[in-house]
Amino acid sequence: MKQVYELPQGFSAAGFSGNIKTEGLDMALLLSDRPAASAGVFTKNRVAAACIDWNRELCGNPMRAVLINSGNANACTGARGMQDNRRLAADIAGGFGIDPEQVFIASTGVIGVPLPIEKMARAVSALPQSSAAPHSSPESLERASRAIMTTDLKPKVCSYSFAVGDKTVRITGMAKGSGMIHPNMATMLGFITTDVEIQGPLLQHLLQNAVDDSFNMISVDGDTSTNDMVLSLANGASGVQITSPDGRAWQEFKEGLNYVARELAIMIARDGEGATKLISAIVEGALTLKDARTLARGVVSSNLVKAAFFGEDANWGRVLAAMGYSGGAFNPRAVDILFRSEAGEVLMMESAAPMPFDEEKAAAVLAADAVEVIIRLYEGTGMATAWGCDLTYEYVKINGSYRT
Amino acid sequence: MKQVYELPQGFSAAGFSGNIKTEGLDMALLLSDRPAASAGVFTKNRVAAACIDWNRELCGNPMRAVLINSGNANACTGARGMQDNRRLAADIAGGFGIDPEQVFIASTGVIGVPLPIEKMARAVSALPQSSAAPHSSPESLERASRAIMTTDLKPKVCSYSFAVGDKTVRITGMAKGSGMIHPNMATMLGFITTDVEIQGPLLQHLLQNAVDDSFNMISVDGDTSTNDMVLSLANGASGVQITSPDGRAWQEFKEGLNYVARELAIMIARDGEGATKLISAIVEGALTLKDARTLARGVVSSNLVKAAFFGEDANWGRVLAAMGYSGGAFNPRAVDILFRSEAGEVLMMESAAPMPFDEEKAAAVLAADAVEVIIRLYEGTGMATAWGCDLTYEYVKINGSYRT
Repeated sequence: MKQVYELPQGFSAAGFSGNIKTEGLDMALLLSDRPAASAGVFTKNRVAAACIDWNRELCGNPMRAVLINSGNANACTGARGMQDNRRLAADIAGGFGIDPEQVFIASTGVIGVPLPIEKMARAVSALPQSSAAPHSSPESLERASRAIMTTDLKPKVCSYSFAVGDKTVRITGMAKGSGMIHPNMATMLGFITTDVEIQGPLLQHLLQNAVDDSFNMISVDGDTSTNDMVLSLANGASGVQITSPDGRAWQEFKEGLNYVARELAIMIARDGEGATKLISAIVEGALTLKDARTLARGVVSSNLVKAAFFGEDANWGRVLAAMGYSGGAFNPRAVDILFRSEAGEVLMMESAAPMPFDEEKAAAVLAADAVEVIIRLYEGTGMATAWGCDLTYEYVKINGSYRT
Repeated sequence: MKQVYELPQGFSAAGFSGNIKTEGLDMALLLSDRPAASAGVFTKNRVAAACIDWNRELCGNPMRAVLINSGNANACTGARGMQDNRRLAADIAGGFGIDPEQVFIASTGVIGVPLPIEKMARAVSALPQSSAAPHSSPESLERASRAIMTTDLKPKVCSYSFAVGDKTVRITGMAKGSGMIHPNMATMLGFITTDVEIQGPLLQHLLQNAVDDSFNMISVDGDTSTNDMVLSLANGASGVQITSPDGRAWQEFKEGLNYVARELAIMIARDGEGATKLISAIVEGALTLKDARTLARGVVSSNLVKAAFFGEDANWGRVLAAMGYSGGAFNPRAVDILFRSEAGEVLMMESAAPMPFDEEKAAAVLAADAVEVIIRLYEGTGMATAWGCDLTYEYVKINGSYRT
């Protein structure tokens, strides 16, 4: 049974072919019927694609659309790259009667190769009259979510809704994975649309908070791409205003945004290249929130921890060592480590002392396709969860392939 | 043909069995016939083994010996671990008529399991009278270098000598790899003996410099162990004094120490778990030395770069992206990237623009078992080289194995 997700009011979506890949969908559009408040979080890589520069400039303005392509990142393509980016925005804007500067662009795929801009421009110009034209239906959203995939095995969509009086608010996001595409690097992209009415700076604040606890807490291989971004558009079509941090609507919206971001991030970690397992590192009782986050991220980023989970090896030593060099503060003499999954829970280390454990039980816990590493520190109230996946032969295969 | 390395004057070495592993050598001793100035660089992991605490306390004092064991790291073993460590030092000291506090200890292997101390103590006590007793011969050094191996495929020894008048100075080091041992983590260990006469603080200064350009510039999998250390002993037996940074002896000694440290570090990178290739990242023209080091380390630490080299994929995009998120400063619009090996050189990127290249030539360059990535930045005089290895199926296999 497939879950169906709806777009927020006033939004439509399209998934279509720009003939970038040799087959299948490779372009997507998210369109709002009215200007929407915008927010974005962008890659910290010093090497950034043309679309990142373009979006950074516009982010915070009222926006109407996001045009996304997979198959080509339009990164390291110089002046030509910026020109192609502008052309795409102009063509979409022309087709839908909006301003080019109301269009975000997101590209993902091979780098250093110019976009096949003429083919893409033809597809973009034909879109309004084509059978793939943007529509508010779940099917259109599903097509859009498939069009942005690269090495992802599954499309990633999530929705949350709540009522305020007789009005319904919806928050709907789609994402693609952070695994790295053959023959070059790909990207983590997230797009969250909502129909609340909210000012840009407040949306930016809430989005940054949500990203810090979700997209910023996952690691597939530790690599950060030139094109990573999470964008949000809020068009006000629900008639529900989010104005200040008091009242139920604000709280509900914040929770919903966090929920959607977290679910999308977990889908990305679970679908990491070659992954067979989702690994969640849950740190409790750290000195500070920052320490908790650093420690949790350190655990899911360690190649040794990741390889041990692939081997279903109850290796608390690697967890402790990864914490030790993560940069997060903790007292190595007061650590509990547990492994937990649907098959139960095993205590591996208590007060920093290795505990005898039932090998059979541990094997059953680690055989699950989602395993939690619980780390208790007894030093403060800092708590955080990070998500990652195991390191497998398949990861090496995908990323070691010849460029052909 | 096997190269033969000699110990500096006044040093002897032993490789013997402490019955820690089920077979083969697992203990080594380096012994000086007189007190030697000492220096050390230790793991920055917050979780440190008993031997690290012991050595940190003694480092800088005149020392006589280093006792090393493989097969058990004596880490996360609490008060019992410290007690066992002290026992080993006392037993060696008793056997050779020296002070326990003149003995450094280094352990590597499984963590969280107490040392088989009685078996080890018996072997240590029997050593002075046994056929494996310390000797100044190259064969004894070779046995010692094999005894400290864990998942290393080859022993790692290197020597350098120079003459001052009619006196000969020798600097001889041995090391073991930073790959991580089944079933738990192992360690990078380096031991450099020399017969110069030098004060402890000056030796510490020169060792730290040498380590910064060698052991600190290699990455096998980004993981830092609880037991990593590099120790140096200088016993003065050559009669050559190294006193201050003027004069040829000082310069020669510094170069020799750097050479030995660098060669050992490269051996470790080349022998990384599952590695088929040595990758050297050479950064030239960075703003500062620190930036050059950070950028070079970022390249050899990236899983994506490492997997691409395994696939012999001319993937400059991953190199540039790894630089971008390494934290090192550079201007992404003025970068040249070349790949070089014994088969020649290919220019992949010039002034940040991708260059057309001969696929066949690139394939030949990347097929070599040692490949250099040369990065030119044109911003300053910062230069650094980092060494790593490719990421292979074999790495995942070694580290994903069940603990059995």
